[in-house]
Amino acid sequence: MDMDKRKTAPVGVFDSGVGGLTVAREIMRQLPDENIVYFGDTARVPYGSKSKENIIRFSRQIIRFLETKNVKAIVIACNTASALALDVVKQEFNIPIIGVIVPGARAAVRETRNKKIGVVGTEGTIHSEMYTKVIQGMEPGASVIGKPCPLFVPLVEEGFAKHHITDEVIEIYLEEMKHSDVDTMILGCTHYPLLRSKIMAYFGEKVHIVNPAYETALDLKRVLEEQGTANDSGNLNKYEFYVSDAAEKFKQFANSILPYNVETITQINIEEY
Amino acid sequence: MDMDKRKTAPVGVFDSGVGGLTVAREIMRQLPDENIVYFGDTARVPYGSKSKENIIRFSRQIIRFLETKNVKAIVIACNTASALALDVVKQEFNIPIIGVIVPGARAAVRETRNKKIGVVGTEGTIHSEMYTKVIQGMEPGASVIGKPCPLFVPLVEEGFAKHHITDEVIEIYLEEMKHSDVDTMILGCTHYPLLRSKIMAYFGEKVHIVNPAYETALDLKRVLEEQGTANDSGNLNKYEFYVSDAAEKFKQFANSILPYNVETITQINIEEY
Repeated sequence: MDMDKRKTAPVGVFDSGVGGLTVAREIMRQLPDENIVYFGDTARVPYGSKSKENIIRFSRQIIRFLETKNVKAIVIACNTASALALDVVKQEFNIPIIGVIVPGARAAVRETRNKKIGVVGTEGTIHSEMYTKVIQGMEPGASVIGKPCPLFVPLVEEGFAKHHITDEVIEIYLEEMKHSDVDTMILGCTHYPLLRSKIMAYFGEKVHIVNPAYETALDLKRVLEEQGTANDSGNLNKYEFYVSDAAEKFKQFANSILPYNVETITQINIEEY
Repeated sequence: MDMDKRKTAPVGVFDSGVGGLTVAREIMRQLPDENIVYFGDTARVPYGSKSKENIIRFSRQIIRFLETKNVKAIVIACNTASALALDVVKQEFNIPIIGVIVPGARAAVRETRNKKIGVVGTEGTIHSEMYTKVIQGMEPGASVIGKPCPLFVPLVEEGFAKHHITDEVIEIYLEEMKHSDVDTMILGCTHYPLLRSKIMAYFGEKVHIVNPAYETALDLKRVLEEQGTANDSGNLNKYEFYVSDAAEKFKQFANSILPYNVETITQINIEEY
């Protein structure tokens, strides 16, 4: 590909389902000139309770699909896949791939005053201890408390994000964290920003809540600038959405999250890639 | 296969995950001489929010896998797959395949006095209106009220079956049903029998709760007798369990449900079938 074509090439963004749209939204805000191809693996959602082996296989298939769209970089907008598959797929594909964990960890290290950081996420993310490893690599004196919250994803996916039942589930999972001395907590799953106001209300002002999406978009910007592929063509940007199942449900969700009217969602068979 | 080999051949049972174990348990009780090969599609669970097209594809792959185990009959121990895929796969495979919906509908028609029947299940099962069609085929004057309860499966899968939060979710989903005049309600998802005591407590004595698993085991017995393949060899029975992901978590769950100590769960790649 010549340089001009690479500049106008889209960025690939993927997640197990709708959660990664919170990252896509941040990329749209911070990099408004970039084209995006988004893939949500709605046939195999959720990822959080599945094994490393399968998450790596799913990620490889999705990256092969995104390569057919000639993407110039890929954002794994899913904490579970960032924790379990990023290191492997980075070795295998000849394209820049960034995850959400390093950016999230960096923001938390910057914000904390007492070096006590909490992380909430899926079982896969928390049990991988990837946030702990990355945070302690940046700040060896930091201590990290992780807590898996497996019901948060279904609560969001099933439309309970604003429901009082979610307040109770937040209390069940996070009571111990609230009474610990963490001063910074990472929303280590891309669905969780959709529960952010409730989580912030539960913790009050003493805990700083980090959403890795913001920092991830900054990382993407840096990568595109370094490789000279940021889009400066001034063309209208284009967003394309693909899912592996239930396009209509995804569309409704996307339109409730994105500052943009999503009209077409295309369903593909991801197992063919 | 000669007749003696067919008699000792196993019955294949499958579900999206652990829910179908409630059906396997019933087969173990009522047909104690039969061998069973169980498959739980834990890599792609849940099925309830996924499209007909994908559920058919998943079911075909699983049946092809079960055929490699030389099963003599197959029980689709999943309401969503029974609703969306049974009619299609029955045409395609040369083996008796039974689902849970016809048996569940039959039990409800037998129990109801006022011909008003409720059905709770996944979105896929309820929106298919398969229970309504089957019940009205048996009893044209019956009226059927369906209610999808999409959080029930994650609540069971994440260990909240006995938690007070589940009582609240039951009330959110079923308050309207409670104040209707249904006198019989079908637990139209194989996970829901694990919430049975809470659901029964919520409805009280005025509503008869039907668990299709019991009737499904009776149907299987009838099919095996009709084709002359019921196992009368007197050999010790053998239960084998396969999953597409997270064998260890499945094993813990299986041991909490089955009257039998499950020692080995084998993980396979179902996408290869």
